[in-house]
Amino acid sequence: MLKLYHQPLSPNSRRVWIALLEKELTFELIALKLDGDQFTPEFMAISPFHHIPALVDDDFSIVESQAILDYLEAKYPEHALQPKDPKSLGIVQMVRMVTINELSPAMSPFVGQMMGMGAPDPEKAEQSKQKFAIILQLFDRLLGDNAFFGGEQVSLADITAGVSIPWLPKLGIPIDSYTRVQAWCDRLQSRPAWQATQPTPEMLAQLKAMMQARMAKAQ
Amino acid sequence: MLKLYHQPLSPNSRRVWIALLEKELTFELIALKLDGDQFTPEFMAISPFHHIPALVDDDFSIVESQAILDYLEAKYPEHALQPKDPKSLGIVQMVRMVTINELSPAMSPFVGQMMGMGAPDPEKAEQSKQKFAIILQLFDRLLGDNAFFGGEQVSLADITAGVSIPWLPKLGIPIDSYTRVQAWCDRLQSRPAWQATQPTPEMLAQLKAMMQARMAKAQ
Repeated sequence: MLKLYHQPLSPNSRRVWIALLEKELTFELIALKLDGDQFTPEFMAISPFHHIPALVDDDFSIVESQAILDYLEAKYPEHALQPKDPKSLGIVQMVRMVTINELSPAMSPFVGQMMGMGAPDPEKAEQSKQKFAIILQLFDRLLGDNAFFGGEQVSLADITAGVSIPWLPKLGIPIDSYTRVQAWCDRLQSRPAWQATQPTPEMLAQLKAMMQARMAKAQ
Repeated sequence: MLKLYHQPLSPNSRRVWIALLEKELTFELIALKLDGDQFTPEFMAISPFHHIPALVDDDFSIVESQAILDYLEAKYPEHALQPKDPKSLGIVQMVRMVTINELSPAMSPFVGQMMGMGAPDPEKAEQSKQKFAIILQLFDRLLGDNAFFGGEQVSLADITAGVSIPWLPKLGIPIDSYTRVQAWCDRLQSRPAWQATQPTPEMLAQLKAMMQARMAKAQ
């Protein structure tokens, strides 16, 4: 039985959760509160850096969301999430890594602001905005006339970028001038796997309260 | 014709370079100085974030070292660098991501010190050392009785981790009590692809001088 240890608001967790749903696999979801429950010896035997997500598949434990996605694709090839053609696969892998290494760090000051942690430093905010423009232009070009990155089937690139990009307008970064990215975003948001894993306003309010309590405690 | 835009001292560049050598492919190496030559319109058309490495394969450009490795594996499957068995593949992907997301950031203060940028903050150094211990223990366990991560053939995990781990002793972090990691390290260092891409002391001295000149200018 597949077990996913996750936190429903974590983008990395949500990516694995979406992949499990897109593959129509049976799995158990185990939510961590991250209030210290990530430091239990039981969990640290599964996830030595005490990070979520972590996946357990019978006697095999695996961490690192992007590695978990590749493992799921290799072990459960039905409802394939990776194209076979080398160029399409290259695009998929590039979009995954650009999301993790360029997009997510650039979003981080704006996510902090949404969580009530104050406005981002103006210089950092400007650098982030320049980065968003380069990323959105690149993604628009890489989508081309395809419905998804690398082809007509949802891929691990769509799952990876498609958990981050839809947040940009909510963070005050418009994306509608990148028409192919906008259409792709709408296409993903209508899928049951995206809808089933969408954080609710209540969950976001709860996280915001927790972050602010932590900040108050740290001061 | 494959063209690799690189910087010989960059671990991310070296990984792609080693993969090209292990696959016995014909390629052209184009070294960037990163003194501003990364901002030319020609290079930014290939690498929009002006990072190295970048690979051009005829009319296809790809960035992000880990994505380039996957593209090469898909396009040039001979001398395979990925196992097929799902569990072995999961281990390979996990080692790649742990190296990038856990090991490299933990090494960064010690690399800075080697480059003459001062001793790391004691608290950060201690956190890094704790991280190294967890990583080395995990890698030792994942190697098990295999010659390489995921099996008896060199994989993208060996290439990714095998460019970082051998630096630990040079940074004052002993690895010899992790006997399987140590033996694996020795095994990799004896391979022609590692030897051909090993930074020379002259190259390191040159980088150190450049870093110090930059620091002096910034002060």
